[in-house]
Amino acid sequence: MRIPKSHPRYESLVRRETLVRAWKQGIVVPEGLIAHGRGEAFDYLFGEETTAPALVAEKAAAAFLVQAKRPVLSVNGNVAALASSEIAGLARRLSAVVEVNLFHRSETRVRRIVRIMRDAGAPTVLGLRPNATIPHLESKRAFSHRRGVYGADVVLVPLEDGDRTEALVHMGKTVISIDLNPLSRTSRMASVPIVDEVRRALPTVEKFVQELQGDPEETTRICAEYDRRGNLAAVYSFLEWRLGVLTRRPRAKPRARGKRRTRR
Amino acid sequence: MRIPKSHPRYESLVRRETLVRAWKQGIVVPEGLIAHGRGEAFDYLFGEETTAPALVAEKAAAAFLVQAKRPVLSVNGNVAALASSEIAGLARRLSAVVEVNLFHRSETRVRRIVRIMRDAGAPTVLGLRPNATIPHLESKRAFSHRRGVYGADVVLVPLEDGDRTEALVHMGKTVISIDLNPLSRTSRMASVPIVDEVRRALPTVEKFVQELQGDPEETTRICAEYDRRGNLAAVYSFLEWRLGVLTRRPRAKPRARGKRRTRR
Repeated sequence: MRIPKSHPRYESLVRRETLVRAWKQGIVVPEGLIAHGRGEAFDYLFGEETTAPALVAEKAAAAFLVQAKRPVLSVNGNVAALASSEIAGLARRLSAVVEVNLFHRSETRVRRIVRIMRDAGAPTVLGLRPNATIPHLESKRAFSHRRGVYGADVVLVPLEDGDRTEALVHMGKTVISIDLNPLSRTSRMASVPIVDEVRRALPTVEKFVQELQGDPEETTRICAEYDRRGNLAAVYSFLEWRLGVLTRRPRAKPRARGKRRTRR
Repeated sequence: MRIPKSHPRYESLVRRETLVRAWKQGIVVPEGLIAHGRGEAFDYLFGEETTAPALVAEKAAAAFLVQAKRPVLSVNGNVAALASSEIAGLARRLSAVVEVNLFHRSETRVRRIVRIMRDAGAPTVLGLRPNATIPHLESKRAFSHRRGVYGADVVLVPLEDGDRTEALVHMGKTVISIDLNPLSRTSRMASVPIVDEVRRALPTVEKFVQELQGDPEETTRICAEYDRRGNLAAVYSFLEWRLGVLTRRPRAKPRARGKRRTRR
C-alpha cells in the first residue's frame, strides 16, 4: 500500500509497514507486532508527539548515560526493525556496547539482529555466545554478557518487558526504559522511564548527550535533580488532559452531524 | 508458554496466544496482530471487563438485531480466530447470514475463514464469489453479497476499519460495531458502537437477543430510547475515571517502595 506523505498519521503508518516487513524477514516475532499495536494505541492518545515530560526524561537519560562508566544499549527485534541507525548513532556517540536480548530467543534471530546492528554502524555488538546470566529471570531470557548488560552500570532498554526491567533494577543498575505505555511495569520499574516513541526518543537523547558531553556540571546537576516520580506524574496528567481533549472533540465539530445524512 | 489460570491477565494472554496460532495457520495477517495490540491497550485501560455503558450498547445492539429484517454478521480474520463459535451462536439465534470480509483479501484466506465459520456451526456463510460492491470503497475491500452485507438492514461489524464502517453507514444501514477503541473512526461512525472485547460482547448480545425475542414491546422501546451520543459520552467518562484510578495507584500502594531496595 502506498501511504501519501500528507496523511495525518504518515509516520505511524510507515512504522507499521516497516515492522510488518521486518516480521517477514524473521527479525520481528508475532508477539512483537501485538506489542507494537499496544504502543500505537498509547501514541495515538499522546498525539504522536514527544510530550514535555518525555523531553525532560530524555535529557535525564542523556545525563545518566554521559556519567556512566559502562553504558550499554539493549536491542530486541522491534528495536532493530524500527531504530537500528538511531541506536548505532547513540552507541557511537557514547562509545557504548550494544547487546542483543530477545524475549523469544533463537540463535538465528540473534545472529540476524547482530548483523543489522553492525551494518547500521554500531561499534560493538554482543548477543551471540552469552557468558553471564541475569538473576531472577528464566532460562534463555537471562542470557547476557559480562562486557554487556550484565556488567553495565547504566542500561538503556527500549521496548523492554517488565520482568527484565525489574531484574536489572534489582541488580542495582540505572535502567532507562523507552516505552509508550506509562502504566506498564517497565515504565513503573525503570530508574528513568521515557514515555515516548522509540524513533522520536533516541535522536533526542543523542542530541542531549552531545550537549552534555561538554558540560559535566550540568550533567551532574540533572542527575541529582531528576525526579522520576514527579516526571511520571506529569506524564499521567498530560495523558488525562489529552483524553479529555480527544473525547470532547466530537461535540466541538458539529458539522460532523450534517455529513451523516443517511443515518437512521 | 504455559499460562497459569491464576494469572491476573489470563484471558488476555490466552487471546494473544490464540491469535498468534491463527496467524501461523494463515487466518490472521500481521496487520491484524498489530490491531489486536491496539485493542489490548484499551482493554487494559478499561480493566478488561465489560463496562456499564458497553452493557447498555450491547442491549441496544440486540434490540436492533431482533427488529432487523435482514441481519448480517460480518467476519474477518481476527474475529474468526477469536470468536467463531460466538458468531455462529448469534447467527443461529437470529437466523442471520454471516459474510466474510477481509481488509487484506485473498481468496485462500476467505476460503479458510468460510470453512472455520461453517465448522463453528454458522448456518449460511458468504464471502466466496461476491456479487455486489459497497460504494465508496476501493476495489477488493468493496466486495460483498446481495444476500449478505450489501442487502442487510442491520449489520454487525466486529473489529472493523473506519472506512468500511463509514461506507455502510452512508448506505443507510444500522451498523453495530464492536471495537475496544472508543475514539476510533469505527466507534465514532457506527450507529451502535459497542466498546468492549469481542469475546465478552458477543455472548452478552446473544443473551439479550434471547430475552428480547419474546418481548417486542421492550425491543421497540430500547430501539427508540437508545442514545448513541450519550452512551459514547458515558464510555469516555468511564475511561477518564479509570485512567485516574490507574495513575494514582502507585501512590496508593506505598509498600512498592520498600521492594525497590537495590535502586540507586
